[in-house]
Amino acid sequence: MGADEAWARKIRHLLAESEVTLLNLIGAPGSGKTTLLEKTASRLGRRLRFAVLEGDVETTIDAERMRAVGVRVSQLLTGGACHLPARLVHRGLAGLPLTELDMVIVENVGNLICPAEFDIGEKAKVAVLSVAEGDEKPLKYPALFREASAVVLTKTDLLPYVQFDVAACLRHLRRIQPEISVFQVSAKDGAGLEDWVAWVSRQHPGKRPGQG
Amino acid sequence: MGADEAWARKIRHLLAESEVTLLNLIGAPGSGKTTLLEKTASRLGRRLRFAVLEGDVETTIDAERMRAVGVRVSQLLTGGACHLPARLVHRGLAGLPLTELDMVIVENVGNLICPAEFDIGEKAKVAVLSVAEGDEKPLKYPALFREASAVVLTKTDLLPYVQFDVAACLRHLRRIQPEISVFQVSAKDGAGLEDWVAWVSRQHPGKRPGQG
Repeated sequence: MGADEAWARKIRHLLAESEVTLLNLIGAPGSGKTTLLEKTASRLGRRLRFAVLEGDVETTIDAERMRAVGVRVSQLLTGGACHLPARLVHRGLAGLPLTELDMVIVENVGNLICPAEFDIGEKAKVAVLSVAEGDEKPLKYPALFREASAVVLTKTDLLPYVQFDVAACLRHLRRIQPEISVFQVSAKDGAGLEDWVAWVSRQHPGKRPGQG
Repeated sequence: MGADEAWARKIRHLLAESEVTLLNLIGAPGSGKTTLLEKTASRLGRRLRFAVLEGDVETTIDAERMRAVGVRVSQLLTGGACHLPARLVHRGLAGLPLTELDMVIVENVGNLICPAEFDIGEKAKVAVLSVAEGDEKPLKYPALFREASAVVLTKTDLLPYVQFDVAACLRHLRRIQPEISVFQVSAKDGAGLEDWVAWVSRQHPGKRPGQG
C-alpha cells in the first residue's frame, strides 16, 4: 500500500469516527467551483452543518470568498502540485471541528486531469464543467468523468453565447458512465441550484441527535 | 542533466538545424486554444509555413479540427499524463517535414499547472486564458504567467456576460511580469487576431530563400 493510499485510509477512519461525509469537487480553472460553493452555502447550511477545504496552488483568494459568505473554511496550498494529496487533506480535516460537522466539501486544485487519479477518502467525486469549456470535454478528459458520481454543468446562462450542445455533452457523459447524475446550474440566475443542493445533502446518510 | 532536459536539448538542436521556431501554447481545458489556432491558421499561413503538434490526454478531436482548416498536424497522446514531455514532442517533430517548415506550434494538454514547468525546447511559451475563467487566474496559477512571453485573453465577445475585469487582469499580469505581451482576442468576431498573428510571425527570425 502506497503512502497516498495509507493517508486516504486514515481519512476514511477519521470521517467514520466523526460521522462526516467528504465530497471532492474537481474541475478546470475557471469552471466555477468556488462560485458554485458560494451559491450552495446558504441553501446547504439550512440542511446540514458543513465546512470547505480550499485547495490551491497559491493564494487564499478562494478561502476568503468562502469566509465572506459565512462558510467555515480551511485553505490548503499545494505549493505547485497539480492536485491535493491525501496527506494534505488529512491535515486540513484534523484542523476542523469534525464533531460539529456533517459534511466537508473539498474544492480541489483547478485541473481536469491530476485530481481525478487520487483517492482522498471522499464519498463521491463531483466533476464541474462550465458550458464555456466545450461539450466534448468528457471525451477529452474521460478519467474524471469515469470516476465522478455527479457532474455539474455550470454557467448555463452563457448557453446563448457559446457553442455548447447540451444534448451532445449528456450523450458523451452517459456513454462514459450511464448512471451519472447531471445538474445544469446557473449561479447567476439560480437555475438548477435546488436540485444540486438536494443531491449534495442526500450524500450524508443521516442526521445526528440535535439536528433538526 | 535529467532525461527531460536532455530531450529538450535534442529538440533545440533539431530546430536549429532546420531553422524552425517552436511555440508552446498552454491554457486550461476550454480556454480556446484549438479555436485560436483554427482562426490563426489562414492568416499565419500567408506569412510562413507552419505545422501544429496537438497534445491531448485522449482522442484526436483537436487534430481533426486542425486538418479541417488545412493545417498540417500531428497528434501526440500522453495516455493520462498532464503535460507533453519533451521526449514526445521530439518524436512529433521528427515525424514532420521540418525542412519545409518555418514554425511548429505545440498545443499542450489542457492544464494551467503542469505544462508550465516543462521545457520542450520552445522559443516562447504562450498562455491562453479565456475571459470566462476569471480575472484572478494569473494570481492563482502564477507559474505559467511567469514563464510565458505572451498571454492571449480569449472569448472577449463574452465580456458583457461574465464577471471579468480586464484592467484588473492586466494589473495582475504586469505585476508578475512587467514586459509581457497581452492580446485580447475574439475568435468569434475576429477582434485582435491580426495583432496576435503579427506577434506569432515575428517569433520566427527570418525567411529562407524561396519564401516570398
